[in-house]
Amino acid sequence: MKVRLVVQKFGGSSVANSERIKRVAQRVVETKRAGANVVVVVSALGDTTDELLELAGQISHSPPERELDMLMATGEQVSVALLAMAIHELGEDAVSFTGAQVGILTDATHTKAKIVDINTQRIVRELERRRIVIVAGFQGVNLNQDITTLGRGGSDLTAVAMAQALKADVCEIFTDVEGIYTADPRLVPQARKLSAISYDEMLEMASLGAQVMQARSIFVAKRFDIPIHVRSSFTHAEGTMITKSVKAMEDIVVSGVTLQKDEAKVTVRDVPDKPGMAAEIFRELAGKGVNVDMIVQNVSREGSTDLSFTVVKHDLPPTLRITRSSAHRIGAGEVTTDEGVAKLSIVGIGMRSHSGIAAKMFEAMARKRINIEMISTSEIKISVIIRRQHAERAMRVIHQAFGLGKRGAH
Amino acid sequence: MKVRLVVQKFGGSSVANSERIKRVAQRVVETKRAGANVVVVVSALGDTTDELLELAGQISHSPPERELDMLMATGEQVSVALLAMAIHELGEDAVSFTGAQVGILTDATHTKAKIVDINTQRIVRELERRRIVIVAGFQGVNLNQDITTLGRGGSDLTAVAMAQALKADVCEIFTDVEGIYTADPRLVPQARKLSAISYDEMLEMASLGAQVMQARSIFVAKRFDIPIHVRSSFTHAEGTMITKSVKAMEDIVVSGVTLQKDEAKVTVRDVPDKPGMAAEIFRELAGKGVNVDMIVQNVSREGSTDLSFTVVKHDLPPTLRITRSSAHRIGAGEVTTDEGVAKLSIVGIGMRSHSGIAAKMFEAMARKRINIEMISTSEIKISVIIRRQHAERAMRVIHQAFGLGKRGAH
Repeated sequence: MKVRLVVQKFGGSSVANSERIKRVAQRVVETKRAGANVVVVVSALGDTTDELLELAGQISHSPPERELDMLMATGEQVSVALLAMAIHELGEDAVSFTGAQVGILTDATHTKAKIVDINTQRIVRELERRRIVIVAGFQGVNLNQDITTLGRGGSDLTAVAMAQALKADVCEIFTDVEGIYTADPRLVPQARKLSAISYDEMLEMASLGAQVMQARSIFVAKRFDIPIHVRSSFTHAEGTMITKSVKAMEDIVVSGVTLQKDEAKVTVRDVPDKPGMAAEIFRELAGKGVNVDMIVQNVSREGSTDLSFTVVKHDLPPTLRITRSSAHRIGAGEVTTDEGVAKLSIVGIGMRSHSGIAAKMFEAMARKRINIEMISTSEIKISVIIRRQHAERAMRVIHQAFGLGKRGAH
Repeated sequence: MKVRLVVQKFGGSSVANSERIKRVAQRVVETKRAGANVVVVVSALGDTTDELLELAGQISHSPPERELDMLMATGEQVSVALLAMAIHELGEDAVSFTGAQVGILTDATHTKAKIVDINTQRIVRELERRRIVIVAGFQGVNLNQDITTLGRGGSDLTAVAMAQALKADVCEIFTDVEGIYTADPRLVPQARKLSAISYDEMLEMASLGAQVMQARSIFVAKRFDIPIHVRSSFTHAEGTMITKSVKAMEDIVVSGVTLQKDEAKVTVRDVPDKPGMAAEIFRELAGKGVNVDMIVQNVSREGSTDLSFTVVKHDLPPTLRITRSSAHRIGAGEVTTDEGVAKLSIVGIGMRSHSGIAAKMFEAMARKRINIEMISTSEIKISVIIRRQHAERAMRVIHQAFGLGKRGAH
């Protein structure tokens, strides 16, 4: 009989100190003793990353990225060694590896490298010897044998890529929440943990502020159909499975409600209604490294239209400067901004085949006199911009309108 | 014309914080701008090693050595990355490497591995591109691609081995003293910095407590005839060259006086004068991991003899226990110890061909009424055990007797 293979990923807060590392070791050993082969992916200890960045900052304001990767990669190396020691203390055999040692080959882009290939030879050999394999997350090595790091969410990516390369039965992402919820439980007390969610929905949720996993890793999981189990490192409760959309899920119209409060709205008035106007504005912004989130432009009236978009508040000053200059150049009107907004979204794979979802959402808000300022939709999500002071109330209203809190709704 | 190649090694105290790292970078860049190719070997930042050991200690009292190496190796990796950044800040191109990356191949003995080979390909390529190469000291990789560390004095060893592999013109060891002295300047104010010393003398000095370099690295330097320059990281003064014995040096009878105060003397009375007695005692001690330093046994009187030896004070309790048991077994008499001793040695390649050195040393001490309790000699050194309270005075007396403090004596 084939032995079940589980990839487990623990983030920095799960290994913040020696006590927590021991707890993680306990968890890993339990999985092993339940009969599975285990590959563990670990991030750097709690604040290590910040401490290393501070050290680098004392020496250089723009350190070479290759050297930054060399420095940062030590963080996970410390974690894997300590976790291996803790597992040995519990009487199981464990062996730790850097990204380079297990052949996590990346492209040459330092600080945000992409995984190209994983050479699983060494890991397979260690698993055959019944050892627990511990791999440093977030890091790899390029063809030149230089150490690279994978950027934000890199450890999740290591775990998912490892699960793919090893054809693992499941990739478990341990976190400080119990799974994926229909809404942020801190904002919506009725929020319910989902037992399952599709990759597509999770992708929308991830990019909409559900901070459990980065969109990047979910994208890879979706592409290779790797089942992900998001679960708590503090309890043994089942978390949320992220998988392909399955039959039972087709009935679910809306899976969750998400809220982003860190965005600001920018509006360009009286944009001439001719080709290339929007392109002009957004090309300039992209060139200056400003990420634009939502873009809304309605049909024109009397030869001109208003164009609105959102950016994270932090980017507002440069955005305004750049946009004013573009607006002047293309002969548009004034540029106004609004920092008092929030973006509320509903996500659900069922939307594709159900009409009336948008109407139901808008009606629920109207009943509570919450005004909608902008609307944008995709196949599986609807986002609206509203006043920030109404955001949390709106979230609860919508959560209830779609019956997300009810037992058995899933 | 062939470009001069310099290997420079900086220890942990030279890179204890960002300010010192910047100073080291300055030093390296100066050497580079003076026209040399530079390979820098660096230890872990100041207290890093202790901090990592403490972390490991919180998790396990006997961590697997492979994992300990994995953990400890991060210390130097941090240093090399930071030093590379600091050099970039000064406008020179530098590139850092772990032991594994530059192919410092070791045997499989974790925590005290031996260097087997260095694959210089990558370093040579970087030097040809006129880059400063920075290598993590103290660490390597075994045939299995597991990270190993070289044990005490490991970074010196990395530097010397690197100098050998690259056929460097000189290996500069930077330290917090200005070079090798005729005696410890804190104890003998007249002590003089030697401009040169032979490998053999330095070997004796190193094992006798002159803590500048470990015997291990000097042994390798001697074997491959690598010129070593021990110098200060704080001044630009010339330090001490360690080389083969040269003509001019033959005239020097005594190069230095060393003192060890951490030893204790053990005496076994009335050891039967028959074969295998001493072997019995020292086999037991070696088997229990006790290192014996000086051993003295004189001719027997009336069928038995007294046997004395020294160990570091820290090892005295187990030594006493083991020796008493051995003494009982072989029918020897009582075992006594004496912690009030010190070992004073003079070292000099010239002793080989000069008679009367020992006499001169003993006479000098006799004049000052300093009693000698034990004597042991090798080809290039004479060691005596005396009362500890006379040690520093004896040192000054001998230093003066051999004219070590005089200008022009060298």
